[in-house]
Order: sequence, then C-alpha cells, then structure tokens
Amino acid sequence: MNKAGKGRILLSVTGFNPQRWYEPLSKEREVVLEPDGAEDPSIDYAVVWKQRPGVLAHLPNLKAIFSIGAGVDHIFADDQVPDVPVVRVVADNLTQYMCEYVSWRVLDHQRQGMLYRRQQAGKVWHERPQPPADAVNVGIMGFGQLGRAAAKALLALGFKVNGWSRTEHAMKGVSTFHGEGGLTPFLNATDILVVLLPLTPATAGIVDFGLISRLRQDGPLGGPCLINAGRGKLQREADILRALDEGKLKEASLDVFEAEPLSPESPLWTHDRVFVTPHAAATSDPAHLARPMLAQMEAFERGEPLTNVVDRAAGY
Amino acid sequence: MNKAGKGRILLSVTGFNPQRWYEPLSKEREVVLEPDGAEDPSIDYAVVWKQRPGVLAHLPNLKAIFSIGAGVDHIFADDQVPDVPVVRVVADNLTQYMCEYVSWRVLDHQRQGMLYRRQQAGKVWHERPQPPADAVNVGIMGFGQLGRAAAKALLALGFKVNGWSRTEHAMKGVSTFHGEGGLTPFLNATDILVVLLPLTPATAGIVDFGLISRLRQDGPLGGPCLINAGRGKLQREADILRALDEGKLKEASLDVFEAEPLSPESPLWTHDRVFVTPHAAATSDPAHLARPMLAQMEAFERGEPLTNVVDRAAGY
Repeated sequence: MNKAGKGRILLSVTGFNPQRWYEPLSKEREVVLEPDGAEDPSIDYAVVWKQRPGVLAHLPNLKAIFSIGAGVDHIFADDQVPDVPVVRVVADNLTQYMCEYVSWRVLDHQRQGMLYRRQQAGKVWHERPQPPADAVNVGIMGFGQLGRAAAKALLALGFKVNGWSRTEHAMKGVSTFHGEGGLTPFLNATDILVVLLPLTPATAGIVDFGLISRLRQDGPLGGPCLINAGRGKLQREADILRALDEGKLKEASLDVFEAEPLSPESPLWTHDRVFVTPHAAATSDPAHLARPMLAQMEAFERGEPLTNVVDRAAGY
Repeated sequence: MNKAGKGRILLSVTGFNPQRWYEPLSKEREVVLEPDGAEDPSIDYAVVWKQRPGVLAHLPNLKAIFSIGAGVDHIFADDQVPDVPVVRVVADNLTQYMCEYVSWRVLDHQRQGMLYRRQQAGKVWHERPQPPADAVNVGIMGFGQLGRAAAKALLALGFKVNGWSRTEHAMKGVSTFHGEGGLTPFLNATDILVVLLPLTPATAGIVDFGLISRLRQDGPLGGPCLINAGRGKLQREADILRALDEGKLKEASLDVFEAEPLSPESPLWTHDRVFVTPHAAATSDPAHLARPMLAQMEAFERGEPLTNVVDRAAGY
C-alpha cells in the first residue's frame, strides 16, 4: 500500500511492548515511536497509552490523539496534552467482551457461585432457595456505550436493570436515574452494582463506604454485590473490605484496582467473598482496534468529522 | 371455591414433604395422598414424583398423570403405570432458571473462571488470552423446549450454537444435527457440551468416554468442557474422571449425578476442574407449577386436549 501522502503516526505507549500495535498501523501509514527532534511537524496523529508526559507537546501539525483503551484518563495524567481532539476507539469486540464479563459476574452472584463453591469444598449437598433473575435488580453506574450494551445483555437474561449516569439517558426497559439527585434512589433500588464509569476528578473514589451502604440491603440475595470493571481509582479498597466485614456488602467481583498489579499484601486476594481478575474483563485488541483508528484517520482526511471525541471539560 | 364436581387428585411423591404441593392444589380441588382402598374410582388425576410402584395401578377413572419436574423418567421407574396420558409441566419459571444456569456455566468455562480462581488462590496477576464468545461453539444435546430456550440465550450472548436431537429440529441461527448419523459431526464441532436430554433407555449412559473424546479437542479454550443439567444417569462418572485425567476433557459443571445426593467418596467433589451443584439448576417450584397443572385439568374438563403429553414409545 502506498503510504506516501498519508499523515504519519506517533505511537507512544508505556508499560507494554508496542509491537502488536506497530504492525497493523504500519501496514498502512508511517509509524514512529518517538518524535524527531525538539519539534516534529511530520506527525499528524498520535496513538497512545500512558504516553510519556510532554511527548505530545511539540507536534505543531498534530490533528488528533487516539486512545488505546476505552478509558482516556491515562492520557490526561500528562498535563501537557495539546488542544486537539482526543478520540476513544470502542471496537465491537471490546463491547462484546465487556458484556460477557458483566453477564458472567452478575450470574455468578445471582446463582450463588461463591456459596456453592464453598459447599463443594466441604462436600455439602444442599440446594439453596434461588431467586430468579427477574427478582434481582442490577444497577449499572455509567450509562454510556458499554453500560447500555451491558444493560441489553442483562435484560435478555431476565434481570431487572437500573442505570445511572451524570446526565439524563433514557433506555427502554431500564429504570434510569441521573445526577447527584438520582444517585441515592438508584443505589437504594440496586442489588448488584456494576461500575462502568470513566475515571474523572468527579468520579475518583466514588465507590466508598457511603455509596456501598446505600445499596439495597434487604434484597433476595441477602445483601448487595459489587462489580467493578471500570477503573480501579473509582473505588476505595479499604472501604470495600470494611463493607464486606460489616455486612454492608455480600460479595464483590473486582477487575480493576487502585494500584495494578494488585499488591500481594492486599487482603482482597484471600477474601473468600471477593473474586479478583487481573484487568482482564475486556482487553483492547490491536487486531480489532487498529482498523477503526485508521478508518477514522482516512475519514478525517476526506473532510469528515471524527467520532467518539472526548469532552475535555467532562474528562471522558 | 367450590370443589364439588371437580375431578379429585392423588398426590403421590417420594423423597420430600408434599405439603408445598398439597397447599396450592387443595385450594381448588380435593387432594388425597393415598388411594382409598384396593380400587379407587374417585381419583381423576395423579400428580407425582417417584410415585410408589403400583399406586396408580387400580384407579379405574384416572384420566391423566401430571409430572412434578420436566423429566418423566421418575414416573416410569414404576412398571405399573396405567395407559393414560402423562403430562409434563414446564413452567416459564423453570425454563428461565435453566437458561440462567446454562448461561452461567457456559460463561464460566469460556471466561476461564476456574483458571482465574486458581490464580487468585496463588496471588498470581496474569491476564490470559481470551477467546470471545463467537469463537466458541456451544453444543446443546437435547433440542426440546429447554434446549431451544438455552440456545436463544446463548446466541444473544454471542456464542456459536449447535444443537442435537433425536429427530430433526431446525432453529434459525443454530447448526442443527440429528439422530445417530448426526451425533459425531455435532460433537466434533462442539467446544462446550450442554446436556439437556431426557433419560430414556436410549440415552442412559450416553455421556461416556467415547462421546467425550469426540468433542472438539483443538478449540480455543484448549479443550472441551461438559455441562450436565439433564439427568445423572445420562453420564458415566468414571468416564468423566478418566477423560479429565487423560486430557480429553478440560472442565465440567455437573448438576446431576448417577446417584443423588453425590456420595462423599466421589472424586468429583474434590476435582479442581469440576464444579458440583446439588441438582439446583432449575427447581420445580410449586408456586409456579400448580396453577398450570390445574389449568390443564380445567381445560380437559371443558373437552380441550392436554398439552406437553409424553410420547410413551419414546419415553419423554
């Protein structure tokens, strides 16, 4: 393919080998891993994951920044991000993975997987009363693309679904709540909380003891459950442990943590009512995301608008 | 409610207290727990679970037998069952429960729940490659009402679905196979086998080493998985253990067993690639099944046909 005339890409990632992204992107455009010199006018696009702070600051022809990963908080940890559009790329594949993860964990809590595993370990044959899905309210915090897709999957399985978001979003079949005023009624009506919020200054630490305590305490599962597949810094792990111990939280499935990898010292590893996965719910797969990124660059070069552009004021 | 003039019910169950069935049935009709005398012409209907052998043999006015439970093999363990229609009552609620159980277990195998729980026990933070649902073929053995409902739920989750049944059944979106000739191709194409067959002389012991070995051995999960929520006597447990040990079977979720409760001596309890539940997938709930039974009796008395009548020749 002729790469001449197509905007060049700066691929700047921290924490993993960029090769899996370099390959599909470089098939179609020139890709560099570092800018050339103090100022580099040859770079049109940046594709980033936790880019080195300042690496984007001196690219006078930079047109757009593409995020590896649905969350974009990793980009703004760098305070020298220039004022160009930041694009989130959410492949069908990532949404699919997240729906699987959420469905899996919700079912495991509703069907009492942890209890039956404990019984199995003790060779106990005892059938427990089982509430059907439609007796259980799943509350999705963060009602954007991922949240709505998860809601659809859960409705199909028979669950009652609530949704909460910062601004108002309606969805057929879902009881939606929004804003500060909607948060407590949303929590009060929720048996299994699914956290899919972006991480912003407004949401950091939001999943704390006070929030967990407002979940439905007298539901059919004997207590509320928490699933966090959003960002680790949304939660306060000391509060989660306290809520588990004080009977305010029955069980938790955590895929993200305040610090990752999760420290071996964390009591979450060994708590028998916590299921830990290593940020594995829905991985950004280059094989599926590179093409949508490149397609957006092509569209932009034809004069069409970018899509899934981040609201810089809101932070997501 | 006036019970006069309505056909009387014989409620004959073994192994549990019949009170939970006696209550809703006796609100509308007269219910007895034993026939009156050597011959009892006052009984029009029998509602049964593992009825005492011969208890149905001398009821000259018996019109129909209603099964507690979707499977009817428990009725025919009695060789003195008279030649009247045997009716299976499958409440929406039971189908709902079975779809939840199947979805839960299929997701747990596809999302590598057993592996991640082992990693958690060792405080290992390691994200594994994850095939999406559409790379995984779920094969449903037994493509009746429960099987088709489970297929629908799995398709909605994104899985590829195969179905096998004795006679031909087509279903949109599902690759269907049937009969002896269709069994091997069905197994060869299946990564996760879901067994929902009825127990009949033709199906007893069908899930054996030979059948398991024909499952897809080179699929994306590294080996096939088995889920049995049908009847325990469909499987040979020694063969399941052998298949697990010889690398022909990766994992199993078993809700039913050759003998229940499962003996404490069974190695299935302690095998770390087997999940045991105590016949808890989908319970017949009297609160949901008594009314459909009574509704069928009313319809019958109006001259309408019974539904879900068992094919005595086929045994289900």
